[in-house]
Amino acid sequence: MSSVFGRLFRVSTFGESHGAGLGAVVDGCPPRLPLSVTDIQAALDRRRPGQSALTTPRQEPDQVEILSGVQDGATLGTPIGLLIRNTDQKPADYKDTDEVPRPSHADYTYQMKYGMRARSGGGRASARETAARVAAGAVASQLLRLRWGVEVVAWVDAVGDEDPALVDPATVTQDAVDTNAVRCPDIDAADRFTDLITSARDAGDSVGGVVACVVRGCPAGWGEPVFEKAEARLAGAMLSLPASKGFEIGSGFAGTRLRGSQHNDAFVARADGSLGTATNRSGGVQGGITNGEPVVIRVAFKPTSTIAMPQPTVDYEGKATVLEAKGRHDPCVLPRAVPIVEAMAALVMADLGMLQAGRDD
Amino acid sequence: MSSVFGRLFRVSTFGESHGAGLGAVVDGCPPRLPLSVTDIQAALDRRRPGQSALTTPRQEPDQVEILSGVQDGATLGTPIGLLIRNTDQKPADYKDTDEVPRPSHADYTYQMKYGMRARSGGGRASARETAARVAAGAVASQLLRLRWGVEVVAWVDAVGDEDPALVDPATVTQDAVDTNAVRCPDIDAADRFTDLITSARDAGDSVGGVVACVVRGCPAGWGEPVFEKAEARLAGAMLSLPASKGFEIGSGFAGTRLRGSQHNDAFVARADGSLGTATNRSGGVQGGITNGEPVVIRVAFKPTSTIAMPQPTVDYEGKATVLEAKGRHDPCVLPRAVPIVEAMAALVMADLGMLQAGRDD
Amino acid sequence: MSSVFGRLFRVSTFGESHGAGLGAVVDGCPPRLPLSVTDIQAALDRRRPGQSALTTPRQEPDQVEILSGVQDGATLGTPIGLLIRNTDQKPADYKDTDEVPRPSHADYTYQMKYGMRARSGGGRASARETAARVAAGAVASQLLRLRWGVEVVAWVDAVGDEDPALVDPATVTQDAVDTNAVRCPDIDAADRFTDLITSARDAGDSVGGVVACVVRGCPAGWGEPVFEKAEARLAGAMLSLPASKGFEIGSGFAGTRLRGSQHNDAFVARADGSLGTATNRSGGVQGGITNGEPVVIRVAFKPTSTIAMPQPTVDYEGKATVLEAKGRHDPCVLPRAVPIVEAMAALVMADLGMLQAGRDD
Amino acid sequence: MSSVFGRLFRVSTFGESHGAGLGAVVDGCPPRLPLSVTDIQAALDRRRPGQSALTTPRQEPDQVEILSGVQDGATLGTPIGLLIRNTDQKPADYKDTDEVPRPSHADYTYQMKYGMRARSGGGRASARETAARVAAGAVASQLLRLRWGVEVVAWVDAVGDEDPALVDPATVTQDAVDTNAVRCPDIDAADRFTDLITSARDAGDSVGGVVACVVRGCPAGWGEPVFEKAEARLAGAMLSLPASKGFEIGSGFAGTRLRGSQHNDAFVARADGSLGTATNRSGGVQGGITNGEPVVIRVAFKPTSTIAMPQPTVDYEGKATVLEAKGRHDPCVLPRAVPIVEAMAALVMADLGMLQAGRDD
Repeated sequence: MSSVFGRLFRVSTFGESHGAGLGAVVDGCPPRLPLSVTDIQAALDRRRPGQSALTTPRQEPDQVEILSGVQDGATLGTPIGLLIRNTDQKPADYKDTDEVPRPSHADYTYQMKYGMRARSGGGRASARETAARVAAGAVASQLLRLRWGVEVVAWVDAVGDEDPALVDPATVTQDAVDTNAVRCPDIDAADRFTDLITSARDAGDSVGGVVACVVRGCPAGWGEPVFEKAEARLAGAMLSLPASKGFEIGSGFAGTRLRGSQHNDAFVARADGSLGTATNRSGGVQGGITNGEPVVIRVAFKPTSTIAMPQPTVDYEGKATVLEAKGRHDPCVLPRAVPIVEAMAALVMADLGMLQAGRDD
Repeated sequence: MSSVFGRLFRVSTFGESHGAGLGAVVDGCPPRLPLSVTDIQAALDRRRPGQSALTTPRQEPDQVEILSGVQDGATLGTPIGLLIRNTDQKPADYKDTDEVPRPSHADYTYQMKYGMRARSGGGRASARETAARVAAGAVASQLLRLRWGVEVVAWVDAVGDEDPALVDPATVTQDAVDTNAVRCPDIDAADRFTDLITSARDAGDSVGGVVACVVRGCPAGWGEPVFEKAEARLAGAMLSLPASKGFEIGSGFAGTRLRGSQHNDAFVARADGSLGTATNRSGGVQGGITNGEPVVIRVAFKPTSTIAMPQPTVDYEGKATVLEAKGRHDPCVLPRAVPIVEAMAALVMADLGMLQAGRDD
Repeated sequence: MSSVFGRLFRVSTFGESHGAGLGAVVDGCPPRLPLSVTDIQAALDRRRPGQSALTTPRQEPDQVEILSGVQDGATLGTPIGLLIRNTDQKPADYKDTDEVPRPSHADYTYQMKYGMRARSGGGRASARETAARVAAGAVASQLLRLRWGVEVVAWVDAVGDEDPALVDPATVTQDAVDTNAVRCPDIDAADRFTDLITSARDAGDSVGGVVACVVRGCPAGWGEPVFEKAEARLAGAMLSLPASKGFEIGSGFAGTRLRGSQHNDAFVARADGSLGTATNRSGGVQGGITNGEPVVIRVAFKPTSTIAMPQPTVDYEGKATVLEAKGRHDPCVLPRAVPIVEAMAALVMADLGMLQAGRDD
Repeated sequence: MSSVFGRLFRVSTFGESHGAGLGAVVDGCPPRLPLSVTDIQAALDRRRPGQSALTTPRQEPDQVEILSGVQDGATLGTPIGLLIRNTDQKPADYKDTDEVPRPSHADYTYQMKYGMRARSGGGRASARETAARVAAGAVASQLLRLRWGVEVVAWVDAVGDEDPALVDPATVTQDAVDTNAVRCPDIDAADRFTDLITSARDAGDSVGGVVACVVRGCPAGWGEPVFEKAEARLAGAMLSLPASKGFEIGSGFAGTRLRGSQHNDAFVARADGSLGTATNRSGGVQGGITNGEPVVIRVAFKPTSTIAMPQPTVDYEGKATVLEAKGRHDPCVLPRAVPIVEAMAALVMADLGMLQAGRDD
């Protein structure tokens, strides 16, 4: 296990999907930052199950309690303990997994690594673990917004084999993202994505997709070459998310098909005398350091592994069997992945901001 | 700066492209591992400039010296100091960059972060920095191979807009990769890639591409959920490389277009009684932990930023100018990126292997 | 704030003395270790206030709840979340400290560092913070005992200007330590210490002293030169405790008065063929690595800063005043420091044990 | 091995006493700090062997080379590579240690930990390792002095059973320390210490002692509760030094004999409106955070283990033998320990200063 994240703004998470609860300890957050339960709860409400017909019908209110580190509506500079009690546990749903490792889940690998596994529902491999990230990420977002004026917005950019959405990273807002259940600010694409998810759900199947995310207002100079470049930290953060299989910054894989003369971002003079770039194929970072342009990333999420359709596979003994999942699961993780991607981006950027502050005179 | 990498197998690198030299300190390598200068030099020779018509004509022998940690051909368990002296410095080539930040380079961001920049050639942002990684990675490869029988093989999988190569990750060897200068074991693709790179070079332009890499023989159980999952560590490592813009594991972005019923890897019984998977869309990891299948990743590299064609841009004062690079640069970083990707993969996997060993009874 | 401790066996603590609660997240504990609430509660009961006439009369039951990481009486290998609710909060007792920084407390330095301070009772600087360490330490002790047969025993070795106790580190047991309220296994010394503490308490004053601690059964080879030598890690751990002012290992400061010919520990052959030492002035470590002899340390604790006697001092504005504490405090921290020293020693040794296991073939 | 030190100002050291060389990589030093080889060499010259009749007659010039990170007399913000070549190697002196572990040395424990040992002279357990710390510490001292006006001065406070020196931490200077070979600014004590060391040397024996150190000019607010308190970091740093057996801050062990009413440091108003303390038994820290008073510590060093007198012991096989050392060694490590203690204190304080800067608005 390695459930500690960050160097200065450091988070330690805990909690199984089906134990007493889960949470996070945020260590290193500066003092005197306005922070309330409401700020954190708002982020959790965007992640919780049961919010729409597109997500699992499981109902978990995910109420957060602040255990420490906050007094009179502001941080103390001390560790912020955050706790979310588990409420809707139905271990019986997972009985099969005691004998049959679910395909493309972590049942088998946890068994191999730990010599045992958490009963019922995947333990730390369950997507439920991400609630703690979202809670901690809400603190990081607050710090980014109030100390540096930095904002983080993510949205569903693609679902399945549908054409991707058309979204302008320079202007997209969280309000626009939240106008629909699928969390795509391109309304036409949102409709297509919704239809696709619904049809997969009805077929007992699942779909994957891509979440895009922009960090805006970030000053030039964040990111620690050579091993903690902004894109390295972001990539590590995103690939630590359940079901994520890929990461891009700026032009990403598509950019590899261009020539240098097409790809380079020429510098231009901004009105305020600073330099900007005419294009942003770099995705807001050059040499691992932010250049003042929006930081734009994309994260690939595979189709949900748990499906209602029967799957031929083998049990732990190697005996052929057919697995039929009975739990209540998301036909597509994308809509709920949006606040999770934002949380991880915020955790990375807050840490990089503090690292740079430590260097400045 | 953050030039320290890893938790148990820990590397600290140093060195500017045009200072006295560069190198690495490998801290935490177990004792009694056979290791000689030859092992490390062989890896460096695959990375060094001037090896073929496809790379920069700069000649830098990159001779490594072992300063400490090795005695009588074996490691002592103490830090292994590695030094590579710089030899072919031509600062005059870079005079322009004192006044004009090169598009899509790190000149501007280093200026903004550090309030100054290394004269001549990008300092730590130069690709030359990766020589230290390759030297350290050779030690990690040795540990992986001799302690666990793990091998790491990378190759050029795509260049520009050419169709990707056809390579079987289960069987590809480093010898097959090294049969041609472009380092692609699919000979037909190698020819196409070579032609494309040559034509870009002749046009004063550059091309990007994709390096693929496989880690074979890795036991099930490596990778530390939730923040140091194998894919998270690999993604962070790869995005820390100069010019990298994307990362995929297993099915990656393409996998997001499939349904769960198409994507899941059914388990099968292997001859030795253990479980394998019929397909490997997971890319050798499930829930962040290796499952015993080959770990397969892909890394996107943008086209080289330095091109011979004139580029309209602005200087540090915001005044319009046209930049014409005079240095000697690679028209395509891919062939030389192969040993670098292998090195970073080896550093990650050696660290994860040791982390798991610390847990075992 | 830096509330994270350890490299492989890693603890993150949180909690103010007078907030909702405090606790710890233990990350990295191996799976399948037998562990129950009772194991942890037993350690907390030795630390809690109100156990005897020698400690503060404050009553805090310090009931621990395991939030995660344990199932069916054994660890899962996942983070172990531990929570202790605060119950007996009397903020009114601390009203004065809002205007007058208490001498030799952390009121002033927290104000200077964080620009604010936790109302009422010192926040993270309160000794109450150590409950989280004791809870986490109980997990480490369990690992040490069951995986390696290592045991940790601490005792009160000196109080005030009384002659120190006579205790044999090779044989002292926790049962012997717990036979009296002052936690000194030398009964004659225990009586003298008790009298001294009682007389200081009755005078509205306080006394300091020394806690000694032995780690027995530790195999040779633990400790990571050069910066994480066993004694370096232990010293750092002990000086992180509230009120601690000094650390010794083996012969300590007294040893500096000897000649080398008197101080050196000659090797002897043990019955089992291994080497031991005839004396143990090294305190169980040589070159930062355990040598198989008992690891013996001593920790100096200053007299409790909070005293009932009036103290002339100045307020935050620099105006002369006389401070009279009204809270309920320990006249001597030593008896309750015993389980805390054991906890920190256990956290260090468990981490070093795992670090060494990661290196072994 | 764990040869990495610090969180933001991070040092990685390498090098055996008798290999090609040793050195350090300083990662995280801010840019634009004036720094030259001369600054570092001056510190090394105070540590090197052969400086006086009180030290080993071994002659090692310990010339440092800056490999990277410095350009035109100032830091670049990139890793600073420092190399010191070994020159005076006489492996034959150590031949015996291949068969007989030297009492109170690390020969035996390295053997047990690594399954082998560096031939000749103790490898990383040799005091020679500290040259790399001194080189890195010189960079930290420069940062402390030029960025914050902080200065670090250490001196020999006691040798053997002689009465300790009388030195005022508030005013002592490095010049005063360097007026004599024993490095004690109390001239009377210096004479006594010199006589004692000389007599021990002539007897083929060795003596120990205590180095004291003060950090002056440090602003209030440095130190990271709870696990990286200033005194915790300093204690860990000092106990990582070869031959150190104890650490005190402020009143230390002597303070445990006082009552709280005698020990507390009353606050007083300073002329500039800030608060100071009338006494400094706290040693400049309260609750782990600097309070603006001088930080005063003491470090115990045991008598040198290598002595010329014959020592009865056993060989690796357990067979009785008598060891007679033939190498050239210090009869007392104290005079050369002074710059080493300063280096470690500087490394800790520079790191804490940067950590606090990262928190500030």
